[in-house]
Amino acid sequence: MSVKVADHLETRVDEIIDRLGQYVACASVSADPAYETGMEAARDFLIRRLTEIGMQNVQLLDGGGHKAVYADWLGKPGKPTLLVYGHYDVQPVDPLPAWETEPFTLTRKGDRLYGRGASDNKGSSTVALESLGAYLALEGEFPFNIRCLFEGEEEIGAPSLPVIIDKYKDLITGDLVLSADGGRMGFWPAINVGCRGITGMEITLKTAGRDLHSGRYGGTTRNAIHDLTHLLATLHDEEGRITIDGLLPDDLLPSQQARDDVAALGLNEDEFYATFGGIPHGFPEYSAHERLVLLPTVEINGIWGGYTGEGSKTVIPSEASAKITVRLIPGHDVTATRELVAEHLRRHAPEGVTLTVTAKDGGAPAYDLSESSPLVVATDRVLISETGRRPVRVRHGGTSPVTATFREKLGIDTLMFGFGQPADGVHAPNESFAVQSIREGVRCWPQVITELGRVWDGK
Amino acid sequence: MSVKVADHLETRVDEIIDRLGQYVACASVSADPAYETGMEAARDFLIRRLTEIGMQNVQLLDGGGHKAVYADWLGKPGKPTLLVYGHYDVQPVDPLPAWETEPFTLTRKGDRLYGRGASDNKGSSTVALESLGAYLALEGEFPFNIRCLFEGEEEIGAPSLPVIIDKYKDLITGDLVLSADGGRMGFWPAINVGCRGITGMEITLKTAGRDLHSGRYGGTTRNAIHDLTHLLATLHDEEGRITIDGLLPDDLLPSQQARDDVAALGLNEDEFYATFGGIPHGFPEYSAHERLVLLPTVEINGIWGGYTGEGSKTVIPSEASAKITVRLIPGHDVTATRELVAEHLRRHAPEGVTLTVTAKDGGAPAYDLSESSPLVVATDRVLISETGRRPVRVRHGGTSPVTATFREKLGIDTLMFGFGQPADGVHAPNESFAVQSIREGVRCWPQVITELGRVWDGK
Repeated sequence: MSVKVADHLETRVDEIIDRLGQYVACASVSADPAYETGMEAARDFLIRRLTEIGMQNVQLLDGGGHKAVYADWLGKPGKPTLLVYGHYDVQPVDPLPAWETEPFTLTRKGDRLYGRGASDNKGSSTVALESLGAYLALEGEFPFNIRCLFEGEEEIGAPSLPVIIDKYKDLITGDLVLSADGGRMGFWPAINVGCRGITGMEITLKTAGRDLHSGRYGGTTRNAIHDLTHLLATLHDEEGRITIDGLLPDDLLPSQQARDDVAALGLNEDEFYATFGGIPHGFPEYSAHERLVLLPTVEINGIWGGYTGEGSKTVIPSEASAKITVRLIPGHDVTATRELVAEHLRRHAPEGVTLTVTAKDGGAPAYDLSESSPLVVATDRVLISETGRRPVRVRHGGTSPVTATFREKLGIDTLMFGFGQPADGVHAPNESFAVQSIREGVRCWPQVITELGRVWDGK
Repeated sequence: MSVKVADHLETRVDEIIDRLGQYVACASVSADPAYETGMEAARDFLIRRLTEIGMQNVQLLDGGGHKAVYADWLGKPGKPTLLVYGHYDVQPVDPLPAWETEPFTLTRKGDRLYGRGASDNKGSSTVALESLGAYLALEGEFPFNIRCLFEGEEEIGAPSLPVIIDKYKDLITGDLVLSADGGRMGFWPAINVGCRGITGMEITLKTAGRDLHSGRYGGTTRNAIHDLTHLLATLHDEEGRITIDGLLPDDLLPSQQARDDVAALGLNEDEFYATFGGIPHGFPEYSAHERLVLLPTVEINGIWGGYTGEGSKTVIPSEASAKITVRLIPGHDVTATRELVAEHLRRHAPEGVTLTVTAKDGGAPAYDLSESSPLVVATDRVLISETGRRPVRVRHGGTSPVTATFREKLGIDTLMFGFGQPADGVHAPNESFAVQSIREGVRCWPQVITELGRVWDGK
């Protein structure tokens, strides 16, 4: 295993931190138009650095929103192409008073680097960028073609990404995606092999033409809140199992391999629940960690109806509503699964009431990276070599819309290979990145490139 | 039966309408401090008119809020005392553009008089006031003592009334209350013999220390909305029966007499439901009208939890709340019944969650006027004489806090003997009062006074 680039980069960690400092100084909050100057500065930083390290065709891609930054190195015609993904936008800094350092000034305290984006995603993107630069400098070439895409809308749901992929289809193409986004979830060595998908809907139940006074009508007629609570209570049994026909057929039940992978992570359930004061609930046949990453959920995220102000009002509400999201597992079609839930609700609604189900646009299928994916094989080799242990397989309970977009638009798999950790506190005040994460990142990224080339060459 | 006063008053309807016009012109909206001048004008009107008709000890009673107007005639020492009740405040006029006439200018169109308070309660109070005046003028005396109380806070929940009753206990005293408030509900001849009581509470259910992201925790832990819907769904069965142990014991079930009384009213259920587009629901062993006036309800008036804004948010809410009111029937203690509901909720809440039940202050017991009450006996005689038919017994699904206050504070019964009708549209724009209601009112009120004197004299 060639470790030349990795060894070199490890000696340059201070330089890399300086560059990360320049990148963090670009206040690139995509959600707030007031930060447009910072967005532009971040794009300029990427253009300059991609050019410096020898990437070519550096350019901005305009999908109608915040522009993406593109660069490529296509020196291996006939070889496969790896798409490297990251994002240059960051979360807002609110609440500002909660920050102990300047959010856009990277500040080192001990082994940690504080600043907005220090971890998500400027830290991990810097790992990727510097790895590519050192690789080209020391090896002179990559073993395959590389295209880089750094978008500016990840933190606001990547609305232009599908537009950019369609518009620049000659540029945004490849055989696999290696993403600098997505963290390590507290496990190491680890490979992210899956995440749940998502779909959602809003429902409104109506029982009368107008709200009614409970003194004049109470006891005679349907109350929309009563009916909604009865209806929503049919979605789960008392132990928290989903009770929707067809939502979890036997052939979608988690495989023994997947269950073993989860068990290998050894989540301490007591510690897990203690962090948020929660009460264990859900399919009692499965562990909490299995329920989180291998099973679907149907969650009511919001409910409202009737009078909710101060004091009381003796109203019989004629209308009540709820927002519902469904976490999907591999095998779940987004639309069909949403329709299963909607159909359950329609079937269980009382006769005579009006139930409106409004599907939420978008959504994403679950994601499952096969053990035979070249990305998994290559990463496995590198992490075993670096740590002496077989990497655990990590699945995420959340959803990666970007990963789903690449699979849907390009038909290709993504390995999320960011180096953030739970302790980084991404999205929160005082976000940070461990210096050790940079060290581990720049050792792994160049080696994964080398090993992926070998796997693609059949070695 | 002496009809001298009634016959006289019937010839003076135009004069009475003029006086009602002066009273309506006093813009006495108790809810809005901008109408203080109108409140004062209404009090001045009452003071002047009570004095003119020969009532004595006319004075204002100050309970800290809008003052009440008091007057009495105590010319029959040793005889019982009747307390006559009315209120001089009116509802706000919003929405003003919906009015077709000036709200504070009584305007006659055909057989109807339009204006705010024309029915509730200035119309029915004028009937009472003019009846007392003509009675004194023509008969020279009442057959018993009379005290009059016109309060100014009925439309805002009568907050000072208990204070006034306590503070002026030498004045606010008597054996029975004849109230000019409370309408005819569309039935005639009719006697209002009961109404339901009310109590309420707000509940909050907590399942975790904070809201959680459904991608990071979904499937592992309790969702407060799920638990709240399951909990609230235990309050009723699918047919709408209340399922709270002890809330409707056999000895509180409606009597056959009460059921016969309700049946005699002959409510057309199809027409009833058509007016509001409702769906029949509730104890299927009883008719809609029985459910409305003879059975209790447990109504969820409001529910909220989680994210209720635009779009979606993948939150597992840690907290969800609901407002509940309970309509009480005779035999229900306010506090004990509220506690029955609270105890049911506590017993059915899942283990480990935190359920907070906050009782709503106040509330009122149900009210039930016995057939042997002198007020019922006297009114029955008058209405049979006037209409040739036995009056139907009307019970209200709503609550009369004033009636409950008189029973609680003074231990005495109230007959609600107002002359408003559903078509009056009280509290709404274009409130009106039928000229025929004045005619019927001024025929009945003086005769009830005469007959009540006879009943009290054992005749």
